Amino acid sequence: MKIKFIITGGTFDKEYNELTGELFFKDTHINEMLKLGRSLNEVSIETVMMMDSLEMKDEHRKMILDRCKKAKEKHIIITHGTDTMSETANFLSHHIKDKTVVLTGAMVPYKFGSSDGLFNLGSAIAFVQTLPKGVFVAINGKYFEGNSVRKNKQKGVFEKVSK
Amino acid sequence: MKIKFIITGGTFDKEYNELTGELFFKDTHINEMLKLGRSLNEVSIETVMMMDSLEMKDEHRKMILDRCKKAKEKHIIITHGTDTMSETANFLSHHIKDKTVVLTGAMVPYKFGSSDGLFNLGSAIAFVQTLPKGVFVAINGKYFEGNSVRKNKQKGVFEKVSK
Amino acid sequence: MKIKFIITGGTFDKEYNELTGELFFKDTHINEMLKLGRSLNEVSIETVMMMDSLEMKDEHRKMILDRCKKAKEKHIIITHGTDTMSETANFLSHHIKDKTVVLTGAMVPYKFGSSDGLFNLGSAIAFVQTLPKGVFVAINGKYFEGNSVRKNKQKGVFEKVSK
Amino acid sequence: MKIKFIITGGTFDKEYNELTGELFFKDTHINEMLKLGRSLNEVSIETVMMMDSLEMKDEHRKMILDRCKKAKEKHIIITHGTDTMSETANFLSHHIKDKTVVLTGAMVPYKFGSSDGLFNLGSAIAFVQTLPKGVFVAINGKYFEGNSVRKNKQKGVFEKVSK
Repeated sequence: MKIKFIITGGTFDKEYNELTGELFFKDTHINEMLKLGRSLNEVSIETVMMMDSLEMKDEHRKMILDRCKKAKEKHIIITHGTDTMSETANFLSHHIKDKTVVLTGAMVPYKFGSSDGLFNLGSAIAFVQTLPKGVFVAINGKYFEGNSVRKNKQKGVFEKVSK
Repeated sequence: MKIKFIITGGTFDKEYNELTGELFFKDTHINEMLKLGRSLNEVSIETVMMMDSLEMKDEHRKMILDRCKKAKEKHIIITHGTDTMSETANFLSHHIKDKTVVLTGAMVPYKFGSSDGLFNLGSAIAFVQTLPKGVFVAINGKYFEGNSVRKNKQKGVFEKVSK
Repeated sequence: MKIKFIITGGTFDKEYNELTGELFFKDTHINEMLKLGRSLNEVSIETVMMMDSLEMKDEHRKMILDRCKKAKEKHIIITHGTDTMSETANFLSHHIKDKTVVLTGAMVPYKFGSSDGLFNLGSAIAFVQTLPKGVFVAINGKYFEGNSVRKNKQKGVFEKVSK
Repeated sequence: MKIKFIITGGTFDKEYNELTGELFFKDTHINEMLKLGRSLNEVSIETVMMMDSLEMKDEHRKMILDRCKKAKEKHIIITHGTDTMSETANFLSHHIKDKTVVLTGAMVPYKFGSSDGLFNLGSAIAFVQTLPKGVFVAINGKYFEGNSVRKNKQKGVFEKVSK
């Protein structure tokens, strides 16, 4: 089973610019993280955008949907900023029925000391292999259906919502 | 869904003794790792033994089986040394049919810089929620049925074997 | 020999707020870093302010000078943001002649993966014990006299300047 | 001022072999550590041996002395296992009078999560630039004269002894 990664940016891949003191995007860390996890999964990785999910607009979500549809793989993981991950998941869930799509992200950048990124990546890789067709969010050790999840921004965790 | 953790030791939980320069066991790091992963799973954690899996004997495997059987939870993760994880998985697979049991471990101690432990834990937590009843090994981003897996000790990876 | 630490903030002590995605100050990490370095130095630690050094004004520098003057210790380390560390060092160098004062900082927060903070702290502790009375900046494995140093903001390193 | 590094092994440079579960030596991490510390010191690095200091014999100490004597640099840092660092320092102190030689090491391997190595390296680099000619041990945030120091193996720290 080949797993396709669609990279969109988010906290996951943010780095610290030591000249300006600001956070920025360079390249995705997915390859490095898969290596650290001793992953033997067959994967293909495509970087579609590198952005903060607060800045995502409809056109970006359509671009992500387009890549999902055109992918020949039936198992897709999307790395995504957590702030609007629920919105993207909800949007995709109305259009993708024949593949298993798992969105995941991180609360703390992978390059920082105490990131949840590697844990979330491990769970996303497992969920994408075992969940049925549909769109899901994998975070906090759980999975949520794409059309019934929201981020609780006060607590920084994801919750199930009634459809 | 409540997940029960049965801790048996293994590389996962080894630490470095700076006075002797040797690796040793103190306490499990599972709580710390679940916190780092921002896990919201309901869990109960029981340390059954803290040993190198090369030293495990039949009596130890029976003790692990006993804890699995007595657990009221239907979803169990066992942390285990990788050297004989396949043997324990195979043994358990002949006796447990009504629960989902996932064994996982690590090639590098969690406390060291480049451990695969957090990734494996993330995948084990996901697999234990989604796989059917039976015994499985979760490692290298994959799952293996408990009665058809072995560790390739030259490569340090797990492989499927014919039943 | 007792070493006094005067904490003023700076990148050294910045943390990542996972709810807002912004960097912020909480407490100093000096105690934790000294413990990690297995330091046996006798120290006293005083947090005077917790601020980005770009926001430091004359009044803040006077406050730092005041604490240096009132300290009974003859050996003082000041942790400071790198952006205006040279300015503070230059200011202090005109007023302190009877103590050894070493300013240090970091390009990357200690809590992040690849910080120079622990290295700089090690060098500052050594320099403060061995340099003569006066004011110095310790960074990049070197020391600079307080009245002849500047930060090269393009390169992110410190340089000697002619007095 | 050019600083010469003489690498002899020790905990500093130990790594974890994930196939055997044992600690071993590969290459020195000094270059990587200097880069992490944003060191701008002019250095030359020579690996003389890669061994556990418990296995060091007279011939090894003579080899280290020989490299110190032949070095054209006047400022030398020796990375060394802590177990017999005092012995080597004492031996060298009887033969080197015209250079500043600083021995340092670590209680925990640099590659592991909680190493004192970077802190010790920072202090050693500072001490070698500021201490007078002679042989010194730099560890625990302090320096000790080479002929009056011992490792307290119960506590894992270094102490001054009467000459």
